[in-house]
Amino acid sequence: MEETTLLYEGKTKNVYALENGHYLLKFKDDVTGENGVFDPGANQIGLSIEGVGRMNLRMSVFFFEKLKAAGIKTHYVASNLEETTMEVLPAKVFGKGVEVICRRRAVGSFLRRYGDYIAEGAPLPLYVEMTLKDDGRGDPLVIRDGLIDLGIMSGEQYDDIKAETRKITEIIAGSLLEKGMELYDIKLEFGYHQDETMLIDEISSGNMRVYRDGTYIEPMELYALFFGQAAGR
Amino acid sequence: MEETTLLYEGKTKNVYALENGHYLLKFKDDVTGENGVFDPGANQIGLSIEGVGRMNLRMSVFFFEKLKAAGIKTHYVASNLEETTMEVLPAKVFGKGVEVICRRRAVGSFLRRYGDYIAEGAPLPLYVEMTLKDDGRGDPLVIRDGLIDLGIMSGEQYDDIKAETRKITEIIAGSLLEKGMELYDIKLEFGYHQDETMLIDEISSGNMRVYRDGTYIEPMELYALFFGQAAGR
Repeated sequence: MEETTLLYEGKTKNVYALENGHYLLKFKDDVTGENGVFDPGANQIGLSIEGVGRMNLRMSVFFFEKLKAAGIKTHYVASNLEETTMEVLPAKVFGKGVEVICRRRAVGSFLRRYGDYIAEGAPLPLYVEMTLKDDGRGDPLVIRDGLIDLGIMSGEQYDDIKAETRKITEIIAGSLLEKGMELYDIKLEFGYHQDETMLIDEISSGNMRVYRDGTYIEPMELYALFFGQAAGR
Repeated sequence: MEETTLLYEGKTKNVYALENGHYLLKFKDDVTGENGVFDPGANQIGLSIEGVGRMNLRMSVFFFEKLKAAGIKTHYVASNLEETTMEVLPAKVFGKGVEVICRRRAVGSFLRRYGDYIAEGAPLPLYVEMTLKDDGRGDPLVIRDGLIDLGIMSGEQYDDIKAETRKITEIIAGSLLEKGMELYDIKLEFGYHQDETMLIDEISSGNMRVYRDGTYIEPMELYALFFGQAAGR
């Protein structure tokens, strides 16, 4: 690892500044959860699972490379599995961070909100919504005009992110389908670097809900199924 | 009153079917609130205030006639202040009811959700958002695509309602400004009759937040200020 400066200590990743102007993400074995149970939706560190940092990185690299081949702009530059690090472009987040969710089926918070109108697991046509990263306010949903009026992003950026999110979700869903699994929803994050919007953060099992034959697959099981026997290496 | 059939008993209004195919809204003196305090945002009947039904009707008629003169489509046909009734077109609601909120300043639930990005009372450019009427789920916010994907309204209907809401809000804000008051936000409801979208329900002090010199005006005080000494008649 070349000389680095710690910029930010995150829940599951640390961010360092590299001398070449890029950032280095160091994936940790800490996962979010409550009472010792892994819950990707939780806002606090719940437990440590040996090797999970490397699995998160491995899946992220797999998808970032697939997206790159499809012409999708991402922050991904290179990775080092031994050191569990990923080199990325120094993108800025929108506001204090916006989460972009794409839903192929109605589960989770969508179902909790709109259960009066839709059944659990009913199909959705690549529905895209955005929430603000704000633990204290429960990551509130925000509409396009809200993001504009709050000065978080422009309407053009919203439309661009929505279109890219749909393309990315279709690619990831396609990869999962090849292995007999179905993507129900996924949470992505975008940033911008030199006025160009791009996918940032990681793409790992904690960011998506995946099912097989109608049964939810836990994040660690998803790795085993996705990468096969080599999962635990 | 001609012969009528009770169709629906609401919290603050009863709805009757008239022989001419129209509906008759009977305004009651019950208001929503908690612990005996009038709170227009509450979902239950809190208390009864003598004459409030007539005040709600009187303000509604005032604004419906003003909107009609401006070419805005509403369900309003006629009114009878003595009997506290309003005759309206038999419009259907979208889904199980959608509330349309227009915000000129950041207060209430907008501030609770987005207070990390905006100060209390900061101006908003006629921001329009929609929520589903669902007491059990806390009237959840819903984006344009959500309304479409849930089969509640079309994109064209959403855009039409958003544009009408802005026109209506400007007209109401103008009337209040003439009396030295400022409209911060307002909650409207739309329906459709013979494929035409129109403003329905009532337009009364319980549906809006109004301020004078930066101080919130309680619903009953608003009537007194708006109609002057004749308010209590």
